[in-house]
Amino acid sequence: MNDTLTTLLEHRSIRAFKDTPLKDEEINAIIDAARSGSTSSYLMAYSMIGVTDPEKKRKLASISNQSYIEKNGHFILFLADYHRHMIHANKEEKDILSKNVQSTEYFMIATIDATIAAQNATVAAESLGIGACYIGSIKRDMDLVNDLFDLPEHVVPLFGLALGYPDEKQDIKPKLPKNAVYFENSYASDEQQKSELEKFDETITTYYQSRQTNKRDDRWTTQVIEKLHNQRNDRLTPFVEEKKFNTR
Amino acid sequence: MNDTLTTLLEHRSIRAFKDTPLKDEEINAIIDAARSGSTSSYLMAYSMIGVTDPEKKRKLASISNQSYIEKNGHFILFLADYHRHMIHANKEEKDILSKNVQSTEYFMIATIDATIAAQNATVAAESLGIGACYIGSIKRDMDLVNDLFDLPEHVVPLFGLALGYPDEKQDIKPKLPKNAVYFENSYASDEQQKSELEKFDETITTYYQSRQTNKRDDRWTTQVIEKLHNQRNDRLTPFVEEKKFNTR
Repeated sequence: MNDTLTTLLEHRSIRAFKDTPLKDEEINAIIDAARSGSTSSYLMAYSMIGVTDPEKKRKLASISNQSYIEKNGHFILFLADYHRHMIHANKEEKDILSKNVQSTEYFMIATIDATIAAQNATVAAESLGIGACYIGSIKRDMDLVNDLFDLPEHVVPLFGLALGYPDEKQDIKPKLPKNAVYFENSYASDEQQKSELEKFDETITTYYQSRQTNKRDDRWTTQVIEKLHNQRNDRLTPFVEEKKFNTR
Repeated sequence: MNDTLTTLLEHRSIRAFKDTPLKDEEINAIIDAARSGSTSSYLMAYSMIGVTDPEKKRKLASISNQSYIEKNGHFILFLADYHRHMIHANKEEKDILSKNVQSTEYFMIATIDATIAAQNATVAAESLGIGACYIGSIKRDMDLVNDLFDLPEHVVPLFGLALGYPDEKQDIKPKLPKNAVYFENSYASDEQQKSELEKFDETITTYYQSRQTNKRDDRWTTQVIEKLHNQRNDRLTPFVEEKKFNTR
């Protein structure tokens, strides 16, 4: 076991931060780590916007319905981004949009590039004792996020990352065990998966009943089916397409 | 600077491996790191398939046109996966498919979950001195990958990760500098982006001319526009939709 493995295995999302800005050298280390990750075909089809403006943080907190976006040490918005590629393609009069940029494949590629950068940023932050939480709920109102940061076509916000000095202790939340997510040489049978999920439901019931705060009676399968049965965000698909991503 | 930051900043993709299998304890550490990452709404909408079967590795190498998939220490296929959620939703007769699973939003969520896991796996491996390379080119023939691993609906392969003890030295490839990918409080102007990319093109020209092997005359903008102007993979979009992902 080395320090990096310890950092990775001890991950927990932090949602309460001291109201102290991160130091410039910490932000730089986090950004450099984000920039250093792998990228598909050297495309680097992502960008980041660091948010320090209190009014913009306030609006993001309201969009996401997460108050800790207002009070943290730093906030980074991660974007799928072919805008820089489009600038050059237009200059050289090459059609890259209908060829690839607007396809499902290249939407996946940009999403993957941005997420590799974000996870490197997260690991870098945590190695420095800085807490982090992904904010997927910016997707609750993409149009407002879009206007707030003046995003051009070929740029889609994916999620935010709230960073800061932790102001809470959090348990490590149990994750699906190895046998439920890692298979060998072939996809697992339904029987194997059902049996693994039954065991995990027991783990989760015990976890929710034994934790310090927010004790409750719950199972993983019940919780996620409820989430996935929720009202659908009908604005997300057209928003992505209007940005000229994922139009088939 | 700590060991984790050093690991992140010294990342380079390794494409030549010793023909020695990773030890079980190394594979377990890599899988545990992958499982420990953040996940949207606790969905854990991903799976991994470890590939050791020589015939399956040979076929993956052929699909991807990358011979080092045949000779490495381990190979992991990363999947966007709502199959386990669907098993339970069907049992409970809840419609989660049309509500969310097949939407653009939940395709993004599963892709992000899988990529967070994969990047944790990559960082864990590199912290142990193990080299890694993402293999996006499995997408060249998704139907063959699908048949090879007997993937059900609601499961889409995203990329592979080739792992192993390095059998080559690689330079660190220059990445877009901070000012080209990280903006503050608002999206950058085209003028700022153009100026940053011009500088980066000079960096890249120098890099390609000064490196040990494969010296050539090239610029980043030329290279990526060429890549994006390539023949489009027309089978990818329908494949993803047939798996009941991303159908709007």
